[in-house]
Parts: sequence; C-alpha cells; structure tokens
Amino acid sequence: MPTSENDAPLYREIAEDVRAAIASGRFSDGDRVPGENDLMKQYGVARATARQALSVLIDEGVVVAIRGSGVYVRTFRPLRRHGPRRLSRDLWGAGRAVWQADAAGGSFETDGIEVDTAPAPAYVARALGLDDRAPVVRRHRRYRLAQRPMQLATSYLPADLARGTAIAEPDTGPGGIYARLAEQGRAPAHFTEEVRVRMPTPDESRALALQRGTPVLDVLRTALTAEHTPVEFNEMTLDGSAYVLQYDFDA
Amino acid sequence: MPTSENDAPLYREIAEDVRAAIASGRFSDGDRVPGENDLMKQYGVARATARQALSVLIDEGVVVAIRGSGVYVRTFRPLRRHGPRRLSRDLWGAGRAVWQADAAGGSFETDGIEVDTAPAPAYVARALGLDDRAPVVRRHRRYRLAQRPMQLATSYLPADLARGTAIAEPDTGPGGIYARLAEQGRAPAHFTEEVRVRMPTPDESRALALQRGTPVLDVLRTALTAEHTPVEFNEMTLDGSAYVLQYDFDA
Repeated sequence: MPTSENDAPLYREIAEDVRAAIASGRFSDGDRVPGENDLMKQYGVARATARQALSVLIDEGVVVAIRGSGVYVRTFRPLRRHGPRRLSRDLWGAGRAVWQADAAGGSFETDGIEVDTAPAPAYVARALGLDDRAPVVRRHRRYRLAQRPMQLATSYLPADLARGTAIAEPDTGPGGIYARLAEQGRAPAHFTEEVRVRMPTPDESRALALQRGTPVLDVLRTALTAEHTPVEFNEMTLDGSAYVLQYDFDA
Repeated sequence: MPTSENDAPLYREIAEDVRAAIASGRFSDGDRVPGENDLMKQYGVARATARQALSVLIDEGVVVAIRGSGVYVRTFRPLRRHGPRRLSRDLWGAGRAVWQADAAGGSFETDGIEVDTAPAPAYVARALGLDDRAPVVRRHRRYRLAQRPMQLATSYLPADLARGTAIAEPDTGPGGIYARLAEQGRAPAHFTEEVRVRMPTPDESRALALQRGTPVLDVLRTALTAEHTPVEFNEMTLDGSAYVLQYDFDA
C-alpha cells in the first residue's frame, strides 16, 4: 500500500481530507461528497484506495452511501424522546398512546406485533421481581415514523397481570397497556431507564434499515406502581441516528 | 470471492458461525475465539477471508483483537452512571467530587486539564441563554478510572460567574465548580441531559483508547439554578463500552 511521508496510509489521508472538508462546512448536511471516481482522479489513486477512504468515513457514520447515487454527508435530524414528559399520566389517562408524544407532527405506526406467554429470562425475572422462569406476557413490535423504522421493543409483564386482559391481545385498546394496568389499580407511577450503546446485530440492521456506521441505543425501562411494585419491563432498541434522549432531574 | 449456495459471501458465513457460538454461550465473556490461522484451517479458506470474517465481528463490537495475542469475546462490565443520584446536592455540598459517585470503589483521575476564556459557540450560547460569542470560561479534561480513559468533558460557564473564582483555575477546590457556584448563591438545582450516540472521530478514538466497533455517548448537560437560570453547559463524550446511564423519573 502506498504510504505518504508521515507513514499514514494514503487512504487515511484522503479520508482525513474529506473529514476536514466536512468539519469546515465546505460540505454540509446532505451534500454530495466526492465519490470513488472523483477521488481516483483527484488523488491519482487506484479504485481500491478510493473505496477504502470512503469506507473509513462510512464506518465512522460521517457519510452514507446511497446505492446507485453517491456518497452524502449524513444528516442528523433526530427525534427528541423526552423521558419524563412522554410518560406523563395525562397521556395514557386520556387514552392517547404514549408514543405519540415523541412524534411531533408525525404519528408512529407499529408492525410486526407478536404477543405470547413464555418463561421469564433471568434478567427479566430480576427486573420484575419474579421467580426465575415465572410466566410473563411478552409483546414484541416495531415502531415506524413516516415509513422509517425507528425502534424495536419487547415488553414483558407478569402473566398474572396480563392474562385475560387486553394486555395479552395484539390491540391493547385506547391508552395502551398503561391504561389497562391503571384499570387494575396498577398504574405506573415511577420509571427507571437504563441506557447503553452498542453496534447492531445483522438482524437489527435489517429490521431498522440501518446505514453502516450506525450504533443502536438499548433503553431498558422498568415501570413501577406508586408502591414500587414492578409491573412492566420494556427492552427497546433505538436507531441511534434517529434519536436524542432527554432527561430532566433535580439536584 | 467464493460464495456459498445461498449467495452470502463465505466470510459472512464464517462470521455468522462465530457469532452464533458466542450467542449460544459456547464462547463467553473474555474467551478467546478462533483466530485467522484457526479459521483458515477449519474452513479451508485464504487468510484474507478469515481476516474479513473477524473484521466483521470486530466492527460489530462483538469481539476485540488484542495485538500479538488473539481475538476475544468483548466483556461488557460497565460503570453505572446514575443521573439524578450523582448530582445530588449532598455530594458537592460536602465538598466531594461529583464524579466519585460514579466510581464505586475506584476513584476518577483527571488529566489534560485546559482552562481558558473564549467566545461562546452558537449552541453553547443558546444553552446558557447568552448572546452569541459572549465570553465563557471553558474547562476541558479527561477522566480516567484505574488508568483507563473513560470520558472527555468540556464545561462552559458564563465568564461573569467564573472570573476571579477557582472556577477559572485548573484546581477548582473541594466540591468542584458546583460548590463554587453555590458560594455565589448560584447552586445548580435542576439539570437537563441530552443523550445521543455516534461513532467516534479518530481523535476521540485515540484520547479514549477505543477498540474498533465502539460507539461513543454524547451527554450534553445544562445545570440551572432554582430560578432556572443556566449556569453551566457540559459537553461530555463517554466511551460507550464503559457506561450504562440510569435515569429515574415519575409519571
């Protein structure tokens, strides 16, 4: 591989040039950056070198390649997901879906809904304060906004609370599962969210239609009643390029 | 490139085999997985194919390559960063560093401290409710735990509040900048944190000694007084493989 004076491989230098041009604002959100052919001509390098330079920037999530079109500066126009506000009792109490709070203007659609009863995995049993392998109702679904897949979610509820109610049905009715829990005197009053980040699995990349260089956010939420009894554990996987999470708290 | 019957390139199939072996628990946290030589022998493939298979798993953050040693299942033993609890007034009021709350057992060390005064960039001015390019004191530092770099942070404070106090000094004294703000009757009472995720820049990869396939968390925190006057904006970049963020809130 040809190297320059300072021993950085040439493709890294080319990547650095394009990165600097983006940082300086010469190319901004959504702009087309030089493609393989442009870089080959501009730097007098082989196609493999030009491709490797672009590959570095794609893996960094700085640019995205659109098949048959070109390479573009990635645009970050995230949805703001406001922890405390979205889970306000006003919402589900009024029969509105919690998720609507996220999608200012737009409206979330769900697909791929699967509902079943299964033994709780160890980490779910722990979060819900159940015995290992106690039965839980499991609700899996995908959320889309204007056709774009945004997140995958799997909720787990103690089978005792869910059985024979709309919680165990694909359509949970107005206000969703929180409204149904409230009807049983088990309204969620407290929430804990744990957030971590990682690269997606190939299955998640497909389900969320992720571009290369896009990490996912895992948000693990436990909903508790006023008496601090856990009633739901929700395991969410969010497209990291689609969200900003906001949390407010007091000192 | 040799392809199998179902047209997935061979290196992807090999990656899938290793991924499945990790998912099934055959290889668990910290275990050595087959390296290039092992995969070449096992699958009868060229070194380039074996390397490409491992590269897929490294980019997914599933395994890490230790130079001169081998390839290992990545261990995720994160530090829990508890938003509300860490910023409890009890801590800085008692002269303890806020960061100590994160490092159960261990103790954070800071290095690379840089303090200066500069015109506020537009997004900082907005967060602090200042005029564009108003003077701010900027404090940059890196946090390490047991030698491991964990996060980079840059705090911005209105120059009016910081000038002539320890806030503008490298050593801010017991309890840190929040204790110094409290002495001026400007104790933080409310916090807003915004969390987003992305791949690191090459500079960040170096400063945080990140393995390939490791995203970073950006945490942007605004500290406000009881009267909701912003007094600090802190831009943090966390090693995504080192942290779980926890937030508690009420419905």
